[in-house]
Amino acid sequence: MPTLTRLLADHLDGTATIPQTIAAAYARHRSHGDDAIFITLRPEAEVLAEAEILQAEGPKGRRLWGIPIAVKDNIDVAGLATTAACPAFAYQPAQDASVVARLRAAGAIIIGKTNLDQFATGLNGTRSPYGVPLNTLRADLVPGGSSSGSASAVAAGIVPVSLGTDTAGSGRVPAGLQNLVGLKPSLGLVPTAGVVPACRTLDCVSVFALTVEDAWAVLDVVAGPDATDAFSRPVPLGHPGAVPPTIRIAVPRPENLDVAGDAGAAASFALAVERARALGAQIVPLDMTPLYETARLLYEGPWVAERYLAIQDLLARDPDAILPVIRQVIAGKPLPDAAATFAARYRVAELALAAKAALKGIDALMVPTAPRPVTLAEMAADPIGMNSLLGRYTNFVNLLDMCALAIPVSLAADGTAAGITLIAPAGHDAVLAGLGAALHAAAGLPLGATDLPYPTPGTLPVRAAPDAIEIAVVGAHLSGMPLNGELTRLGATFLRATTTTPDYRLFALPGGPPARPGLIRVGSGGATIELEVWSLPPEGFGRFVAGIPAPLGIGTLTLADGTKVKGFLCETIATEGARDVTEFGGWRAFVAAQAKTA
Amino acid sequence: MPTLTRLLADHLDGTATIPQTIAAAYARHRSHGDDAIFITLRPEAEVLAEAEILQAEGPKGRRLWGIPIAVKDNIDVAGLATTAACPAFAYQPAQDASVVARLRAAGAIIIGKTNLDQFATGLNGTRSPYGVPLNTLRADLVPGGSSSGSASAVAAGIVPVSLGTDTAGSGRVPAGLQNLVGLKPSLGLVPTAGVVPACRTLDCVSVFALTVEDAWAVLDVVAGPDATDAFSRPVPLGHPGAVPPTIRIAVPRPENLDVAGDAGAAASFALAVERARALGAQIVPLDMTPLYETARLLYEGPWVAERYLAIQDLLARDPDAILPVIRQVIAGKPLPDAAATFAARYRVAELALAAKAALKGIDALMVPTAPRPVTLAEMAADPIGMNSLLGRYTNFVNLLDMCALAIPVSLAADGTAAGITLIAPAGHDAVLAGLGAALHAAAGLPLGATDLPYPTPGTLPVRAAPDAIEIAVVGAHLSGMPLNGELTRLGATFLRATTTTPDYRLFALPGGPPARPGLIRVGSGGATIELEVWSLPPEGFGRFVAGIPAPLGIGTLTLADGTKVKGFLCETIATEGARDVTEFGGWRAFVAAQAKTA
Repeated sequence: MPTLTRLLADHLDGTATIPQTIAAAYARHRSHGDDAIFITLRPEAEVLAEAEILQAEGPKGRRLWGIPIAVKDNIDVAGLATTAACPAFAYQPAQDASVVARLRAAGAIIIGKTNLDQFATGLNGTRSPYGVPLNTLRADLVPGGSSSGSASAVAAGIVPVSLGTDTAGSGRVPAGLQNLVGLKPSLGLVPTAGVVPACRTLDCVSVFALTVEDAWAVLDVVAGPDATDAFSRPVPLGHPGAVPPTIRIAVPRPENLDVAGDAGAAASFALAVERARALGAQIVPLDMTPLYETARLLYEGPWVAERYLAIQDLLARDPDAILPVIRQVIAGKPLPDAAATFAARYRVAELALAAKAALKGIDALMVPTAPRPVTLAEMAADPIGMNSLLGRYTNFVNLLDMCALAIPVSLAADGTAAGITLIAPAGHDAVLAGLGAALHAAAGLPLGATDLPYPTPGTLPVRAAPDAIEIAVVGAHLSGMPLNGELTRLGATFLRATTTTPDYRLFALPGGPPARPGLIRVGSGGATIELEVWSLPPEGFGRFVAGIPAPLGIGTLTLADGTKVKGFLCETIATEGARDVTEFGGWRAFVAAQAKTA
Repeated sequence: MPTLTRLLADHLDGTATIPQTIAAAYARHRSHGDDAIFITLRPEAEVLAEAEILQAEGPKGRRLWGIPIAVKDNIDVAGLATTAACPAFAYQPAQDASVVARLRAAGAIIIGKTNLDQFATGLNGTRSPYGVPLNTLRADLVPGGSSSGSASAVAAGIVPVSLGTDTAGSGRVPAGLQNLVGLKPSLGLVPTAGVVPACRTLDCVSVFALTVEDAWAVLDVVAGPDATDAFSRPVPLGHPGAVPPTIRIAVPRPENLDVAGDAGAAASFALAVERARALGAQIVPLDMTPLYETARLLYEGPWVAERYLAIQDLLARDPDAILPVIRQVIAGKPLPDAAATFAARYRVAELALAAKAALKGIDALMVPTAPRPVTLAEMAADPIGMNSLLGRYTNFVNLLDMCALAIPVSLAADGTAAGITLIAPAGHDAVLAGLGAALHAAAGLPLGATDLPYPTPGTLPVRAAPDAIEIAVVGAHLSGMPLNGELTRLGATFLRATTTTPDYRLFALPGGPPARPGLIRVGSGGATIELEVWSLPPEGFGRFVAGIPAPLGIGTLTLADGTKVKGFLCETIATEGARDVTEFGGWRAFVAAQAKTA
């Protein structure tokens, strides 16, 4: 099965028909031979009939036209039972979960419901009465969970993309262990209506894919407010861009880096750090203590009560229908009281504040997705301890209202995969996607457990989304400059660095801090001036322009390649008497020269 | 004591000195003769010394220069004890609460700490070992609480403004009972760092004032993110505007309107509805059931545990130091468990969704601030029941993440006051302020318990809605001009016609149709140019700016009244050789002249 991007192109140009794609998915499922991946796989004939209809209808602009998708079995798909990997819990949903409805409206075909750690409680994939999906890379390792079947289905090449869920890392750990991309969106960005809750205040629907581009294509379809979902909220989606010239990536400081004694895992993470450096990133060691304290609260604090709420009826009615390890995690201790619950919420709010301060000026935090792989034998011997180990770098993310993206780093000859996860505050999903795509491309690995090579050109296409507005910045909003955060907070992504036509002059305006330049177009005696083109959604662009103080404003600049974009200009009157710094060729060079002089 | 706005003007123009103002405040405190208003009143000599220093320093642009302010005694003021109306709880804060620090930085003078219902638990003002502040209008009525002293201090004319807090209505009910404005901002808009918690997840610092304009002046100083406050969050503040030509106000449907059998209260609310209609509002009856269900959760649900957390040490150490009624409310029942706590949170999220849907397209919900006044005798006879009655229209607001503004409606000859509260989703504080100012002006009442008349002009200056962006147009986008539709299609509304300062020149640019002018600011030889100010939502503004072709752009214009708005400017280079049409005073006049010629 090719990537989603390739498959869609094949459907559109007739290289493949949708029925052919469906037949290939089922053939691959048979040849892979793992019956533990799906809890419910729809009959091939039924799905082929659906494929024929879609093929006959034509694409009609649908962005996932004919794409087969597997859905974790805690997400409702009308017509298929929802089990959450617990037969006694199973019910027949009357309607699709909001995400599934959006996928179908975009032309996707749901082929079945995938296995999971029961009630999405676990990160290892072995906690299911429906068997343990194979780790597609190394059969003695756990597949990762809780979204085990969704990960294995993509890694095995049965479907190009799948839906998981992620409360504590269930959308990331299996990606890390199976050489996949796992996209854990910002809380509330993707609706959870129609999803069996784990912790309703923390649950996210996640996406597994072979590439970041593919994961984003799914996110782009399923994201957005849902009037039926009390936990939906407006989060700017943005769109992935290229890696900005100046970027800061935090990594755990050495004493906080836990690879559980695995030299290979340590080497892989070092490799990822080197690749980030090669992309121009500045690496910043981070004290992970507040994040680790947060992580402990997820299972030691009151949030377990949310899992209890989700299954309390079954616990009362038929406790033996629940796996012992799940019962132990969810109902093994008395619930804390309301005061302890609020106290924990306050503590997380304080830790979030500390994390926010520590990550100020940081584009992303990069951590191993899991400390190291875990074998099935280790998991059987220590079901709680090994599971906790797998969540070392994932448990704190949702509590701190952050988004995350797991991508592959290395794949040893024996099938041992290592991955990293990029983490940023809610709303920065697109920043992580742009960076993740570049780091994944740099890894040059085959995709999942398939023999597909990483697709060229290797990064997401550098262009503004159809609805976005490009803006050229020439001064304090350049990447790494003091006001760059004003852009990124509004959902901006970096597109490219270039220059103007040779018709401009640049002046250092009086005032500040921050020091700011003024650009004006001149009739003669101009020069080219360096700039960066960023992209903003219309609302963010509007807010950005509204915040620009006199004498600066937004006009139209002509770039070196002859194209025109909106960009900063200055009122001519304000440049009178200001220092002309055109000779430096750009604001960054002028600032650097000033710093040397000072 | 005049209004804050008047007082500031008097200080600035020398009509009054700050020491005179302070002396007047203390004199009024003595003449009013209510020792229960302040728990701590600073010595007059000490405050006068502070006033002398401020006077000597001059205003330095400080927006509250020399304004005396009273602060509720659950908000830290360095140098004064914080008691929360419980002597055994008292402590000496090492530093000002964030709000107090902001007030002082703006030149305000804190004269003392005011009485309150102990631990801000109550809405009536009788629950304090420091006595019961008098209701300044009618001595047999409760003053309202919990911010009793702060309300009475303003109503009595001791200070023009004061800080309260509001978790369940403590910043609104006393305003309603004492003919005041009570501004309860959006959660997280004003920092609560340094405030004794009632319910940390719901607490707001509120403002009492004689007019909406004064309350807004204080809010404008204290609002904004606070890096030390885990519950601070970015909320757009905006600007109060005029009442838009089209406005929809929801009111409780008749069977949901509870005035506890008080015909006078019913008549007052009907009067408020008529005034809203007279302002052009469409009145929409609302089913209040989801709001009332939410209100019950505040005291019957887990949020009481937050109050418990705030005083648990004292409860363990010295329970008798706490008033019996407060003990009964906070510790009278076993705390619910974590599951019940999350279940209540889910329920509130669902109720919030329902409320949001019901209020779609509604600018504000208007309710009585309290069903009716309550006498001291009634309160003594039924301390819990009468308190609950007072919170009928306030308890749900913070739980639903809404902002509120209480304003006066009527004041009977016997001193019986009635008020309304306007309510809207978080971030709509400015919408409420604009509407509230207009409704308050329409009431034509004296202010508080003073004999001050309502100040002319009676409304706040006309500005765009909080989330909207103002834009000045000077050419083809003027009303009736060829491109005006580009504005209106993007959701623009007309605000006003005015001119620039006399620093601009207007040129008829070559090209078209449509013919377009170019405006530039000049150092000398400028003139005023006619323009129109329109308002656009951020997304519409973004799209509008993105569509403006060179050589035009959007910068910042200075209007005749000195305010600045975004507006059309032209690159100077493009005006070279273009016809200077400044002499016409504006594009409309030039176009009209051309038409005559043609």
